[in-house]
Amino acid sequence: MKLQRHPANPILKPNPLNEWEALNVFNCGVVHHNELFHMFYRAQGVDYVSRIGYAVSSDGVHFNRLREPVLSPQDEWETRGVEDPRVTYLADEGRFIMAYTAYSPLGITPMFAESANLITWRRIGPLLKGEDNKDHVLFPRKIAGRYVTFHRRPPSIWIARSDDLEHWEDFQVVMEPRTDGWDCNRVGGGGVPIETEHGWLVVYHAYDYDHVYRLGVVLLDLDDPTQVIHRPKEPIFWPQEPWELHGDVPNVVFSAANPAVGGTVYVYYGGADRVIGLATCRLDELVAFALSG
Amino acid sequence: MKLQRHPANPILKPNPLNEWEALNVFNCGVVHHNELFHMFYRAQGVDYVSRIGYAVSSDGVHFNRLREPVLSPQDEWETRGVEDPRVTYLADEGRFIMAYTAYSPLGITPMFAESANLITWRRIGPLLKGEDNKDHVLFPRKIAGRYVTFHRRPPSIWIARSDDLEHWEDFQVVMEPRTDGWDCNRVGGGGVPIETEHGWLVVYHAYDYDHVYRLGVVLLDLDDPTQVIHRPKEPIFWPQEPWELHGDVPNVVFSAANPAVGGTVYVYYGGADRVIGLATCRLDELVAFALSG
Repeated sequence: MKLQRHPANPILKPNPLNEWEALNVFNCGVVHHNELFHMFYRAQGVDYVSRIGYAVSSDGVHFNRLREPVLSPQDEWETRGVEDPRVTYLADEGRFIMAYTAYSPLGITPMFAESANLITWRRIGPLLKGEDNKDHVLFPRKIAGRYVTFHRRPPSIWIARSDDLEHWEDFQVVMEPRTDGWDCNRVGGGGVPIETEHGWLVVYHAYDYDHVYRLGVVLLDLDDPTQVIHRPKEPIFWPQEPWELHGDVPNVVFSAANPAVGGTVYVYYGGADRVIGLATCRLDELVAFALSG
Repeated sequence: MKLQRHPANPILKPNPLNEWEALNVFNCGVVHHNELFHMFYRAQGVDYVSRIGYAVSSDGVHFNRLREPVLSPQDEWETRGVEDPRVTYLADEGRFIMAYTAYSPLGITPMFAESANLITWRRIGPLLKGEDNKDHVLFPRKIAGRYVTFHRRPPSIWIARSDDLEHWEDFQVVMEPRTDGWDCNRVGGGGVPIETEHGWLVVYHAYDYDHVYRLGVVLLDLDDPTQVIHRPKEPIFWPQEPWELHGDVPNVVFSAANPAVGGTVYVYYGGADRVIGLATCRLDELVAFALSG
C-alpha cells in the first residue's frame, strides 16, 4: 500500500510576486465543502514569518489562490508566525474550526479559531499554554458528548476533550513511537480523522533518527479513540521526489489534510517545507490496509 | 441626495502582474452573504477580452482577490469576453444567479449562470439571442410565481418573466429615457433591486447626448415592477474624480451592484471603465429620496 503522487505535483509553489509567500508554501489544511476543496496553507516570505493563505479548487488539483493571507500574526504569541493549519468542518453546527500553531519567542502555542465562511476567522483560544505542543486537529464530531482533539506531547500523539473548545481536559496518550523503524523517534497527527464503519482512520506523520518524515496510517476505536484497533507496520508515503528530498528542510513529506471525496483520499502534504504536493489512494484500500497491513 | 464616495477609492485597480486584469477592472456585481462581500468584477488585459474575477471582503472596502478568473469565455458567443456580472442570491433556493453579457463577433447575448458556492458557475442559457440586449439582472425572489429580470432594449429598461430561468416571456417596458436632462439618451438597470416596504428600490444608470454616465434611483411596485411609483428628477451620482472622468471610456460611473447591508447601501461602480469605486448612502435616506425626490 502506497499513496500515488499526482502527475501535476507540486500543485502549489511559492509565489515570488507576493512577499508573504515568496519563499515557502507547505503544510496545509484542506476541507471539502459545497463541491469545493478549500485549502489553507502555511506560507513564508524570506523573513520566515508564517502566514496562512487560502486557495480554492473544484478538482482538488488546480488551485486558485487569494492574493492576501486569511490569517496573519496578531499578538505577542504569534510574532514569528501562524503555522500548520488543520481545518475541520463541524457539520452539526455549520462552522469550521482551524487548529493552528502560534509561534513566538514566548514559545509555541496550539490554537483554535472558528469561521462560518472560511475567510474571516475568530480566535477561540489555546488548547493549552507553556509547553511544546502542536500537531493538534479537531475530530469532525463530538464523541460521548464532547469535542475531541489530537495534540502532540513529544514524542507521542495525545488526545484531549472539551465541552466548549476553550477548556480542555482528560489528556491521554494515544500512540507512541515504535522502538525501531520509520516511526521510532516522533509521531504526530495528520489531517482530520476520517470516520469509517471500522473506526477512525488516521493518517499520521513520523520521523526517525535520520529525521526523515514519512506518513503512516492507524485505525482508532470510534467511541474511544485512545484505543488503537490496528497500526500497520509499514508507512504509506515517504520522500522520493527531488522537491521532497531538498528544500527548506530536507526529507520531509508532512500532511495536515486527508479529505475523503468520492471514494478517494486526497493527501495534501508539504514537500521539504517548500512546496505542496498531492498523493491519493482509494478510501476502501486505505481502510483495508489500516485493518490488516 | 447624493452618494458619498469612500475615502479609499478607487478600491480596486488593474493588476499589471496578471495578464487578464492588467488593463481595466470595472463593472462588478457584489452579493453580501455569510458576512462577506463577494465581488465579481469585469477585467480586461491589453487584448480587451473581458473575464470575470472574484474578490472577497469582510468590510466591503478592502478586497482580497483570486489570482485566476472565475468565469472566462467558453464558446463562439463569448470570444470577445464575458462582461458586466450582476449576482443575485435566491435565498429560497440557496443558489446564486449571475447575469452577464456574452460578447463576440456574433453579437452580444444576455446570459444567466448559476452557482451554489460562488466559485464554480454553470451556464443556464441566454435571456434571448439576436438583438442588442444587456443590463439584465434577476430580482431576488419570484413575483407572482415567476422569476423576473430586468433587461435593456435600447434605449429603455424592460422586464421579462420566466418559470425556469431558461424560457423568458411577457417582455414589457418599465422605464424610458426622459425628454431632457441627465437620463435623456439611454437608461439601464443597476444592481439587484432592493425590496422595501415602499416598493422595489432600483438604482439605474443613464447617459445623455454628451455620453456622460450618471446614476439615478426609481421606486417600482412590489407586485408589478412595470409600474413606476416615483422617479426623482435628479441623479444621485455622477463623474467627478479624475479616474471617473478619464480612463478607458471617459465620464463613466456605471454600477451593477448596490447591496444593502446594515442599513447602508453600498454602490459599487466602474470608474471610466478602468477602476472600481465605492459610494454609499443610508438606505432610509435613499428610500425617502426615491419616494419624494
